[in-house]
Amino acid sequence: MSDYTSVDGAIPFECLRVDLVPGRTVIVHIDLQNDFLHDEGHYGKSGIDIRHMQRVINPINALTAEARQRGVPIVWTRHGTKGVVDGGPFMQHRPFLKDGGLRQNTWGYKIYEPLGALPDDWYVEKTRLSAFFSTNLDVILRGLKAKTVIFTGVLTNQCVAATSKDASFRDYMPIVVEECTGTTLPNLHDPAVEMMRVGWAAVSTLEDVMAQIEELPLTNSPVGD
Amino acid sequence: MSDYTSVDGAIPFECLRVDLVPGRTVIVHIDLQNDFLHDEGHYGKSGIDIRHMQRVINPINALTAEARQRGVPIVWTRHGTKGVVDGGPFMQHRPFLKDGGLRQNTWGYKIYEPLGALPDDWYVEKTRLSAFFSTNLDVILRGLKAKTVIFTGVLTNQCVAATSKDASFRDYMPIVVEECTGTTLPNLHDPAVEMMRVGWAAVSTLEDVMAQIEELPLTNSPVGD
Amino acid sequence: MSDYTSVDGAIPFECLRVDLVPGRTVIVHIDLQNDFLHDEGHYGKSGIDIRHMQRVINPINALTAEARQRGVPIVWTRHGTKGVVDGGPFMQHRPFLKDGGLRQNTWGYKIYEPLGALPDDWYVEKTRLSAFFSTNLDVILRGLKAKTVIFTGVLTNQCVAATSKDASFRDYMPIVVEECTGTTLPNLHDPAVEMMRVGWAAVSTLEDVMAQIEELPLTNSPVGD
Amino acid sequence: MSDYTSVDGAIPFECLRVDLVPGRTVIVHIDLQNDFLHDEGHYGKSGIDIRHMQRVINPINALTAEARQRGVPIVWTRHGTKGVVDGGPFMQHRPFLKDGGLRQNTWGYKIYEPLGALPDDWYVEKTRLSAFFSTNLDVILRGLKAKTVIFTGVLTNQCVAATSKDASFRDYMPIVVEECTGTTLPNLHDPAVEMMRVGWAAVSTLEDVMAQIEELPLTNSPVGD
Repeated sequence: MSDYTSVDGAIPFECLRVDLVPGRTVIVHIDLQNDFLHDEGHYGKSGIDIRHMQRVINPINALTAEARQRGVPIVWTRHGTKGVVDGGPFMQHRPFLKDGGLRQNTWGYKIYEPLGALPDDWYVEKTRLSAFFSTNLDVILRGLKAKTVIFTGVLTNQCVAATSKDASFRDYMPIVVEECTGTTLPNLHDPAVEMMRVGWAAVSTLEDVMAQIEELPLTNSPVGD
Repeated sequence: MSDYTSVDGAIPFECLRVDLVPGRTVIVHIDLQNDFLHDEGHYGKSGIDIRHMQRVINPINALTAEARQRGVPIVWTRHGTKGVVDGGPFMQHRPFLKDGGLRQNTWGYKIYEPLGALPDDWYVEKTRLSAFFSTNLDVILRGLKAKTVIFTGVLTNQCVAATSKDASFRDYMPIVVEECTGTTLPNLHDPAVEMMRVGWAAVSTLEDVMAQIEELPLTNSPVGD
Repeated sequence: MSDYTSVDGAIPFECLRVDLVPGRTVIVHIDLQNDFLHDEGHYGKSGIDIRHMQRVINPINALTAEARQRGVPIVWTRHGTKGVVDGGPFMQHRPFLKDGGLRQNTWGYKIYEPLGALPDDWYVEKTRLSAFFSTNLDVILRGLKAKTVIFTGVLTNQCVAATSKDASFRDYMPIVVEECTGTTLPNLHDPAVEMMRVGWAAVSTLEDVMAQIEELPLTNSPVGD
Repeated sequence: MSDYTSVDGAIPFECLRVDLVPGRTVIVHIDLQNDFLHDEGHYGKSGIDIRHMQRVINPINALTAEARQRGVPIVWTRHGTKGVVDGGPFMQHRPFLKDGGLRQNTWGYKIYEPLGALPDDWYVEKTRLSAFFSTNLDVILRGLKAKTVIFTGVLTNQCVAATSKDASFRDYMPIVVEECTGTTLPNLHDPAVEMMRVGWAAVSTLEDVMAQIEELPLTNSPVGD
């Protein structure tokens, strides 16, 4: 990896090492829907290289399984609009979405089935890059008394970066699991991860965050306050 | 510059070319305060290399002068808190701010004087990376009927990226002037610019945006609707 | 009606008379769901007197029919949560909701069928009194280029007052149609209407707003800008 | 007082009795500025009857003094804009503000001096009725780990109602002290208080809230979490 943070003077940040808070940890899986991950989804069928996004599938399955063991609540976000009218500049930036893709109430909008989302998990419908913007995500996290929030998903340099950043604005401690994030522009993956690491999130390996989850008490449901 | 957007498949974005809308264009200068730009400011005195941030001074002065000629409203944001309590995780990430720097009502919080901010310009006080978060920036932009918003300032990979992104969420068309942005981590400048360009903003040269401003009508004050 | 605005000194407000803007008018129907309006809904079955809420049905049907003729976009909001966790203090204030009522994905959460909501209308899922809080309502209204927004629904003193107020914060001109609003506490209806009228909204009769809609051009879809 | 909540059926609410949480209680004084409270302020000089607003002065001084004894943090909000452009529909509703009053950086914008605001208190600049809208109030309350928030100020039916309501949306427990609120339209005071009481806030007497503050530990500064 290039050294993105080499500087001449003093280092203008300190990397965070965040310990998961028992009873106050939540996982947010970002936009793991057919349109991004499935070969027949809108991105795949548009000829976009989705392999770097698909790499997240196995690590996320491992993470989700461990989290379910410990009662860590799981939130799934999905990106989509009714159409171009509520899509904003995002749609103008991505002309291949003009006539379809990332549309509410379509097959492509569903969570990719092998990831095992359950009806009783939490769901967030988003229309912009950040899953906090004009959604119920903050309502859910406050209701769950979340303090440490684990983020995975796609795209590293867009929705994952935007959502983890917005989490830090609201005083949640965001933890991004590197292997569980992917993008359509793999050359931007490493610098995006670096921006999070130096700017607004703890960046963790899957191994490390799994080890931390394993040490949580078995019942990790929200505590009193 | 590295080619951050080279991919195997179809290109998953289209760069925006945004024309300034007469009477609906506003400039937002981000965090151009002594603490970032002045040799005696908190960043400079902490030994952080601020030269890449200081490079914005001349281009921004040229831009501001031209904008004033055409009556383009100018907004100055400033980053600062009362202390650590309202600083959030941002403060934990930057231990050199624990005892000072980026504090409201200090010299370091003032706009760097050579930039010529005027009392009758617009001002925004921010406490998080994005100048839209928990501030009056959107109130001002709506009041000014803004559609195209020109962004400059520091840091490219943090407050400039975050604020221009949040502008696009609210259906403003953000235009980031590359020479007018700078950072403490110059190796992250180019990838940050690329993320904006492919994700949520038009990226412009100073020359190009100056030429566009020169073509605006002389009275560019907010129009009826 | 009591005279709620009689004062000794100067009158501290001026009532607004708002003309509908062609191509930029939207109707927002608030929380017209079975749980509030249907005899078998959660409010009715809990023994709460829902007759003042049910009075809105005919006027709203008349309004909706006229609006559809002119292509005025229609937004339906619905109030509901997954449960108590994401319900907030609202749930503590209303113990009859502890075990059901206002829950997502239930029959009671559906729009009351005689109101004729169509699949291609716009929908907003809300969890707090104001339909702007943590929802996509503002995204939709911006996308539709709305300037004048007509509000109906329940409860006058809670969700209608809160949502119309929040609309004015965002520089939309809210118009509340008096006959199309109702509440569980009829004695609070008139003062709530007065607070809107003197504080943040135009209050209109059904007759007046119908007459205005009839004068809109036949195709009222969102205009350029 | 009229009985605003008399109904035929089941009572659709339960009044909240909220105990102050030690170390997590904050007072928010709303808009106690010269323009509202001082005889020479903009409201007074415009001939508006400000006596019902002025009644809050003594009770608020008693409350503030007791709070300072116990280290309860105090937040002062102020309402004002640069002018009409950023004032929104609020300004159209109040033509007597067209040329002055509620303007930032004026004498009328300052906190009414007899209330004893201290430089080290917290301050919020607001431009709309709710002190949460586009301000740093939520940043401050989160930073202070607030759970129970005591509200006072003017106007009962506008900024106090709007701000306490918005507090409940964010899962704070709002407590409105009745004697410490006032309005320009006294006939709307009681119904506004009733709407809060049945809808989104605990309503308390000064005596009761004072007694509760007296029982807080002497050092009431924010606790760990």
